[in-house]
Amino acid sequence: MSGAMRKSAPFRVLLDMDCVLADFEGNYLKCFREKFPNEPFVPLADRRHFYISDDYKKFEEQSPDILSKARSVYETPGFFGSQPPIEGALAAAKEISGLTNVEVFLCTSPLTKTPGVHHDIMEKLEWTEKHLGMDWVKRVIITKDKTMVHGNILIDDRPKIKGVLKPLPFKHILFTASHNRHLDLRATTAAERLDNWTDGSWQTLVEKYMKLM
Amino acid sequence: MSGAMRKSAPFRVLLDMDCVLADFEGNYLKCFREKFPNEPFVPLADRRHFYISDDYKKFEEQSPDILSKARSVYETPGFFGSQPPIEGALAAAKEISGLTNVEVFLCTSPLTKTPGVHHDIMEKLEWTEKHLGMDWVKRVIITKDKTMVHGNILIDDRPKIKGVLKPLPFKHILFTASHNRHLDLRATTAAERLDNWTDGSWQTLVEKYMKLM
Repeated sequence: MSGAMRKSAPFRVLLDMDCVLADFEGNYLKCFREKFPNEPFVPLADRRHFYISDDYKKFEEQSPDILSKARSVYETPGFFGSQPPIEGALAAAKEISGLTNVEVFLCTSPLTKTPGVHHDIMEKLEWTEKHLGMDWVKRVIITKDKTMVHGNILIDDRPKIKGVLKPLPFKHILFTASHNRHLDLRATTAAERLDNWTDGSWQTLVEKYMKLM
Repeated sequence: MSGAMRKSAPFRVLLDMDCVLADFEGNYLKCFREKFPNEPFVPLADRRHFYISDDYKKFEEQSPDILSKARSVYETPGFFGSQPPIEGALAAAKEISGLTNVEVFLCTSPLTKTPGVHHDIMEKLEWTEKHLGMDWVKRVIITKDKTMVHGNILIDDRPKIKGVLKPLPFKHILFTASHNRHLDLRATTAAERLDNWTDGSWQTLVEKYMKLM
């Protein structure tokens, strides 16, 4: 095959699930308030930390078991499966996946704090099947360490991506979520932000990184 | 940091779970015979194909629903969690993980054939927690496409590893299982075989590939 004929390596987009495709933050607040109507809560505008428990610590004096209550919300079976999709996310995922020479994988972390709590992962596959179809279940990669995954860009709401591969083997794009909205990018591992799936900016972003490959 | 001082990149070992750490084959046969005592079955010595259904097709004339029965065994909740560890596998995994400059990840595929069947993944995390501990749950990577995972060697019983990254981004070591025992390595993607975890050959193998890195 001549050089001109050689097909270039596909551009691989890794999409985080919670807060990128699935509305974890909105669902969390709704479920927390339903489950604990008499407890204090953190409105979305006041979220500041990636881990919810870090934001609920301020209530510990008035409500000593607030952290276990806060954790129980997302550890309750059904929580992950019930998350509504983020506006425009599913259409964007399908569009990216349909681009020439682009491959999309969903890249998500399991809960690992509480022994015996592993249903979250099953529900994420059920969520994927329900909202995107069985073909997409084959594109889910579940890993605590996302640096172990081959990819060109990772779109993820977590401010700092950490893992065994250093430097990061992909460009990290910070998807804006209520907990990271206030952050300067220099306090993150991200190269830039993606604010939403609806204003057309993801197309510009994907094109830009495909050219940089 | 001087060149002499620079720490070399860790050597990454990816271990498949079914038929490498967990005795899928033995457990399958036991569960099949318990569930369908009047059906014909394939003894371990007669296994020839990676997919069990390919070996049970020969019974279709005498038992028309044999394939759905065969599939139902591993699709029944509890099957994956109940697998006994393969002899020496857990000790070897811990030993490999304890080697200097070596990192171990468990790399396993979800069932993706039957809509709604996703409990297998939850049970694999439960299995890992039970037999290796919570720290190892953080080292599980669940993916249909193992080529998407960074690693130096993958120890896997599947004869042909396929995925979006070509050529394979790691050396594939074929772990011997009843379904692949008869295969010439030229019919596989593997560089060599590992027959068991008990005769000391894994140490030689890991040392060899660490030197080749």
